[in-house]
Amino acid sequence: MSIKIGIVGYGNLARGVETSLHLQKDMELVAIFSRRSGITSVSGVPVYGMDELLTFKGKIDVMILCGGSATDLMEQTPMVAKHFNCIDSFDTHAKIPEHFANVDKVAKANGHTAIISCGWDPGMFSLNRVYAESILPQGTSYTFWGRGVSQGHSDAIRRIDGVLDARQYTCPKENLLDEIRHGQTPTVDAYTGHTRECYVVASDGADKQKIEQSIKTMKNYFVGYETTVHFISQEELDTHHKGIPHGGFVLRSGETKKGTRHVIEYSLTLDSNPEFTGAVLVAYSRGLYRLANHGGKGAYTVFDIAPAWLSPHSAEELRAHSL
Amino acid sequence: MSIKIGIVGYGNLARGVETSLHLQKDMELVAIFSRRSGITSVSGVPVYGMDELLTFKGKIDVMILCGGSATDLMEQTPMVAKHFNCIDSFDTHAKIPEHFANVDKVAKANGHTAIISCGWDPGMFSLNRVYAESILPQGTSYTFWGRGVSQGHSDAIRRIDGVLDARQYTCPKENLLDEIRHGQTPTVDAYTGHTRECYVVASDGADKQKIEQSIKTMKNYFVGYETTVHFISQEELDTHHKGIPHGGFVLRSGETKKGTRHVIEYSLTLDSNPEFTGAVLVAYSRGLYRLANHGGKGAYTVFDIAPAWLSPHSAEELRAHSL
Repeated sequence: MSIKIGIVGYGNLARGVETSLHLQKDMELVAIFSRRSGITSVSGVPVYGMDELLTFKGKIDVMILCGGSATDLMEQTPMVAKHFNCIDSFDTHAKIPEHFANVDKVAKANGHTAIISCGWDPGMFSLNRVYAESILPQGTSYTFWGRGVSQGHSDAIRRIDGVLDARQYTCPKENLLDEIRHGQTPTVDAYTGHTRECYVVASDGADKQKIEQSIKTMKNYFVGYETTVHFISQEELDTHHKGIPHGGFVLRSGETKKGTRHVIEYSLTLDSNPEFTGAVLVAYSRGLYRLANHGGKGAYTVFDIAPAWLSPHSAEELRAHSL
Repeated sequence: MSIKIGIVGYGNLARGVETSLHLQKDMELVAIFSRRSGITSVSGVPVYGMDELLTFKGKIDVMILCGGSATDLMEQTPMVAKHFNCIDSFDTHAKIPEHFANVDKVAKANGHTAIISCGWDPGMFSLNRVYAESILPQGTSYTFWGRGVSQGHSDAIRRIDGVLDARQYTCPKENLLDEIRHGQTPTVDAYTGHTRECYVVASDGADKQKIEQSIKTMKNYFVGYETTVHFISQEELDTHHKGIPHGGFVLRSGETKKGTRHVIEYSLTLDSNPEFTGAVLVAYSRGLYRLANHGGKGAYTVFDIAPAWLSPHSAEELRAHSL
């Protein structure tokens, strides 16, 4: 019997989830729900309006929420948790405790199970921070993002006068990564740990110097970062910068005793940010389904799910082949 | 109230556990048990004979077994699980199912909880294989070990006529790591993935060519590997090769759809193999303690322990600061 999955929302992340579900033999995509009407899915699975969600009560084991953190999930996840087991990738770090409390309350009251903030950061990166800090309590943790596309920064550049299109990459400073790998513990924050590379298509006759200046002095986005701006043609951008790659590094450098150092590193190199996030959501949907079957009620995070529950293989198989 | 820990066996690994326990504020080392008599511990904690083990029933929450996999643990862990919750780092991969069954039976019959095969491989590397394969079911997994000291191979060299001392390092082939990181999926096994570096102190007048030949033709140890032999002085070996560093890499390269590739990498660079293994055992002892308090009975592995249980921090703290 396969795990029946529904998807709420149908943007890039949802299509990533849809793609990943094909690779999991014990799961079946039953329905997609969207606010937009008249759309069809890549896989041919029917797309329903949000108003039809409740007609699927009892027919879907796990609902995967693929809306945005800024606008959708704080309302959607509690709403869906009232009627279904569900999982989201809510990533507004500062609001996680509030979102958790909201979802937990509704899920518990209605006997459902939910996982929030599941992806790669928050998600796999968070897990690796907790594992590494638990093993090496005396040490320094680092998180670097990239090289990857920041959608928010790309959008911000596109709003500048004279800019037709733009792509911004966040890049970790390789020299810092190397220092940490070799046992040094530099002081690093988001600003000093990363550079920002901008690829910009300017309109004919636009003042490129002014555009570059506008980018570099943009508060909350570029001020404080080492930023480089490259003007390229639309063709070049379309050919070389249309993907949405991302990734990053979580490192923990710690000592068990003075002079005895250990470095733990976890890294991701992703051709597609939404497809990988989707793949994580799908694996955790299996964990969520099992947790629900074991009587778990309320909200959970990646920290609460035993790794074995993510795998399609039995405990015996895992011990024999993966341990 | 702190978690009361006992250590069984007092070699390198046990001293690694002892060192790590100092860094965990919620844990307390109560006693060490050894077959050897008249020894004292680094931390001053009393060392008792194995015959006194049972006098500590009810006084120790988790017993950490630090004996060897080849000779001790298959007997010791079931014996100790009869009377205590316990954890070991059993690493004879082929015998894990048998060892698990033995420990599970005794632990269940006596109402105790046990974790077996907990360290970095088996242990953290196993975990990372399961996480990565669950997220990317379509792909290729790789495990590389090193650069690190292989005690077994060093011992084997020392048994050759004319050899006074020796140290053998297992080294991953960097070019293969780079290929995998860049999206290639070469076919790799233990032989083709690693080289073996030997540092040998020969006695005066020994036939070095013959020693080198003996090493390179040693079955089950060096045949099939790219092996290099360096003859050095005892002083040089004592100065540069007395540590027991180790580490390695677990990689998963997988596609979510054709042409969309993701690479997940986990790596360890360890100044001291036994100290890091000890640190992992200590973190999982906390998980074991909580599992026991939640009514878990029988044998478990790292696959069964939710990450949150390894951390001294509460679920709220983890969500607020690590997610």
